Amino acid sequence: MSYVPPIDDLRFLLTSMFDLEDLPKLFREQGFDSGLALALLEEAGRFSAETLAPLNLPGDTAGCRMENGKVITAPGFANAYRRYAENGWCALSATPEFGGQGLPHTMQVLVDEMVSGANLSFGLFPGLTRGAAEALTAHGSEALKQAYLPRMVSGEWSGVMALTEAAAGTDLGLLRTKAEPLAEGAFAITGTKIFISSGDHDFGGNIIHLVLARLPDAPAGVKGISLFLVPKFLPDGTPNSLSVGALEHKMGIHAQPTCVMNYDGATGWLVGVPNRGLNAMFTMMNTERLFVGLQGLGIAHAAYCKAAAYAKERLQGRTPSGGMNPAPIIEHADVRRMLLSVRAFVEAGRALAIWVAMQIDISRHHEDTAARDAADKLVSLLTPVVKAAFTDFGFESAVMAQQVFGGHGYVREWGMEQFVRDARIAQIYEGTNGVQALDLAGRKLGMDGGAVVRGFFHRIEADLCKVEGLEDIVTPVREALALLRELTEHLLAVSADGAEIGAASVEYLRVFALVCFGWMWVGIAKAAPGSEDAGIREAKPVLARFFVTRMLPQAGALAASVKAGAGPLAALPSSLF
Amino acid sequence: MSYVPPIDDLRFLLTSMFDLEDLPKLFREQGFDSGLALALLEEAGRFSAETLAPLNLPGDTAGCRMENGKVITAPGFANAYRRYAENGWCALSATPEFGGQGLPHTMQVLVDEMVSGANLSFGLFPGLTRGAAEALTAHGSEALKQAYLPRMVSGEWSGVMALTEAAAGTDLGLLRTKAEPLAEGAFAITGTKIFISSGDHDFGGNIIHLVLARLPDAPAGVKGISLFLVPKFLPDGTPNSLSVGALEHKMGIHAQPTCVMNYDGATGWLVGVPNRGLNAMFTMMNTERLFVGLQGLGIAHAAYCKAAAYAKERLQGRTPSGGMNPAPIIEHADVRRMLLSVRAFVEAGRALAIWVAMQIDISRHHEDTAARDAADKLVSLLTPVVKAAFTDFGFESAVMAQQVFGGHGYVREWGMEQFVRDARIAQIYEGTNGVQALDLAGRKLGMDGGAVVRGFFHRIEADLCKVEGLEDIVTPVREALALLRELTEHLLAVSADGAEIGAASVEYLRVFALVCFGWMWVGIAKAAPGSEDAGIREAKPVLARFFVTRMLPQAGALAASVKAGAGPLAALPSSLF
Repeated sequence: MSYVPPIDDLRFLLTSMFDLEDLPKLFREQGFDSGLALALLEEAGRFSAETLAPLNLPGDTAGCRMENGKVITAPGFANAYRRYAENGWCALSATPEFGGQGLPHTMQVLVDEMVSGANLSFGLFPGLTRGAAEALTAHGSEALKQAYLPRMVSGEWSGVMALTEAAAGTDLGLLRTKAEPLAEGAFAITGTKIFISSGDHDFGGNIIHLVLARLPDAPAGVKGISLFLVPKFLPDGTPNSLSVGALEHKMGIHAQPTCVMNYDGATGWLVGVPNRGLNAMFTMMNTERLFVGLQGLGIAHAAYCKAAAYAKERLQGRTPSGGMNPAPIIEHADVRRMLLSVRAFVEAGRALAIWVAMQIDISRHHEDTAARDAADKLVSLLTPVVKAAFTDFGFESAVMAQQVFGGHGYVREWGMEQFVRDARIAQIYEGTNGVQALDLAGRKLGMDGGAVVRGFFHRIEADLCKVEGLEDIVTPVREALALLRELTEHLLAVSADGAEIGAASVEYLRVFALVCFGWMWVGIAKAAPGSEDAGIREAKPVLARFFVTRMLPQAGALAASVKAGAGPLAALPSSLF
Repeated sequence: MSYVPPIDDLRFLLTSMFDLEDLPKLFREQGFDSGLALALLEEAGRFSAETLAPLNLPGDTAGCRMENGKVITAPGFANAYRRYAENGWCALSATPEFGGQGLPHTMQVLVDEMVSGANLSFGLFPGLTRGAAEALTAHGSEALKQAYLPRMVSGEWSGVMALTEAAAGTDLGLLRTKAEPLAEGAFAITGTKIFISSGDHDFGGNIIHLVLARLPDAPAGVKGISLFLVPKFLPDGTPNSLSVGALEHKMGIHAQPTCVMNYDGATGWLVGVPNRGLNAMFTMMNTERLFVGLQGLGIAHAAYCKAAAYAKERLQGRTPSGGMNPAPIIEHADVRRMLLSVRAFVEAGRALAIWVAMQIDISRHHEDTAARDAADKLVSLLTPVVKAAFTDFGFESAVMAQQVFGGHGYVREWGMEQFVRDARIAQIYEGTNGVQALDLAGRKLGMDGGAVVRGFFHRIEADLCKVEGLEDIVTPVREALALLRELTEHLLAVSADGAEIGAASVEYLRVFALVCFGWMWVGIAKAAPGSEDAGIREAKPVLARFFVTRMLPQAGALAASVKAGAGPLAALPSSLF
């Protein structure tokens, strides 16, 4: 009963539903095709299942600890990380200029799902390094890039993002860490950061901190924040003036050393333009947020694997049609309902992740500027949807999979409660899901005066029109799309009214996600007959029907909440809370 | 930032909304009135806030441990338990015949909410003792009752319910623990039980285990299970042959010693009739399940207290109307949405709990047989609704309250993640919420050929008709009731079709609960102008409107799922999961 990489589903998605020929031709010129893609994914799946998943529960139990001011990670993690880097996974989608393999981001996303699902605590180490490397690639000076990127891309060195402070979380404008000029273009960084994932570890190599701080006389708020590269070890090999203040004691991801970091006049170098540090960080925000979304999806899939296996083995209770003997609990309607709910999210979500990731690849590498620009806008639009919806559905999925185990789900030995605790963080970090919803409703809808979102809906509608048959799946999706369009036009009309946008945002995002999942289910059901896999041919339309009959109706209730407007939220004075 | 007992709300509910004169006159004859009720509740609230709540987070951190085969509870728990018993709380609603105070169960429920909310791990100790005492009161021989009940009622001794085995959870018919006759009416009990709350502790006194086991030649399945009283110490003071095999390592309630219990030929005495042990246990199932429901409600309230206090203090981000300075996050729409959602559940749930508890008191003590019988049926009908809906909404509430804290909610020090972990168990134990839903849809609806549920709906409708004004609150509740009636008639019509009932049950129960909450909000809004508390007069109608506009619409989506029928659940062969 363990992690099963979704290779069959990936094969279906990459050969029957999506066409990797739609990726920029750069990749084809490099010899990338679906055969290579699947070979890579099988290898990543094997590593996830055989090396990472077996470390997940022991890592949760052992956690990380401090010894003489240094972080000691859970047994096996350092070794697994070394193998991960040696196998080239750190370099997968990085630019060849600094030693990367230059493979499509689409591959990265699918590897991320498996690695995070098998072991989220582990997955954050390479994930954050990649994020730091991307920021450095986009904004660092040539000297910084040459000095740091090759060994970050190879996995020899790791990366850390140090943004949050105790009084500055969502609102980074409040941060107070200082940067004071030293000689030769360096700065002395002083301040305390909290919630710093991978802040320290015992994997060896340098640890490269990207730290947000304020220059002297910087403007107040978000326009006075600059980004600095602060290595654990200075170029001459001496330790920099930074230290781990404490390990955070968290609900989950126990094998991930989330640190309080003290920078005591640590030497750093400016990355990018002074006072534009937040923009530099936001460069990679889209891919980071998609990564977090995939964490929710990955854990949901991992939890499903265990729950489905358990449900087929555990004998308990009779079924309406099953005679006198106890039946496998998979025969009970409520257990099926929970398992099907997880799959109806996971399989549509995985398809949507591929679609969005392909847009990222197009936005970066397509030979046509207009195509790049259009794809970039679609990615911006869908990023908050993927981050928030995948992590919300992911958490709910982990809870349902745990419920399948009854009391055995509440004790640690089966690992189900760990999935719930680990999945929970993804709804919070990289911008809480409430912040994602505001980003969608308050910012992304307004792109190009609404043209981006309207164009996206038009695209969905065009896809729905291309389907013959399957009316029982297509019709409810078309109805939900009509509802989403109505809500969208309403929000565009009141876009100047922050209270209305805020009140509508969370439910609106969920309707948006449900429509996207429905769109994917239509595409999946349409593609299923072309699969070589009889199980896929049979299962996919059933799951699509489950989704449209038992999950998609949520959209109506959510829409009613949106339409209720800001009044019910604003009416109670703060003093009466 | 700590636990605030809901005394203001209780004062409102017990003086402006409900009339304790509606309780059986037995209680009035004993001098029970709302003044005494509130004095008691204030005292229980003080104890919860000052003694139990401060032990909650330290108890989670310390947990329980084994030392020489004995359980050592977290620091402070034994002392708190002694004070709890000395103050008479164990005896609150127990029968005076064995030293109880004979107060209404309505009082018990309200005390349970506060004790469980302040410290669930603690609350289970007296709660399980009470359950065991109730079973013994109803089914024990006079000799057993005289020997054990007085000291269980006083809290000097504690009680344990030992039902579950590794292969027999929901399906107790599979249990294998044996009972073999000894001399003088005693039995030797042999078997291993798991998930045994309060299985052992260091509070002193005897521990009375009620154990389900099979007599020799007992019929297979649930009709061959008998109930035995197995004390930790035999009447002559010698230790009985039972031992703690291990402490379960759980997601939450760490300060509660959930044990694997080994009975190695332990001496026990039959409680009730041979082979009717399950019936004996089910005697107290209604009150136990309501107790679990109140745990969900209590934690939701406790989590709300901290989240609301934090939201008023934490400055982060600007608001649409708030100028340039960071605002208290209570001004952000999404934070308000989460806090209002918790209150809209908690305050309606608390009212519903009082209503159901008053029915319990009527069912036990009313002078009129028909009134007792009618009340008993209403309690049976509503028990699964309260257990499942209160714990589902309770868990969701804990998650939302945690989300208010952002990253600070994920670390242990604020205690928010503990609420989530602790609340989770209530959805699982005492019959999973899926089992509750089946109980409602498959068994309780059919009572008296549907007359009980129809009568209940009629009662709700009659209450709605008595309200003048408040149309914006009453109308949506009336519409939801109509929908619930439609679903109910559908389920009554297909009651022989187990697959249909199973497929509909979970969503049906939630619609049922939403309508009950709506009914309560109408009653609350109607009663609010009569409150002496200006805050209550202002807040209650606002919360009622929030509930009907932003939560009640869920009913429509859930109804659509119910109407989708069993097909979408049954269509996928088990092998394709």
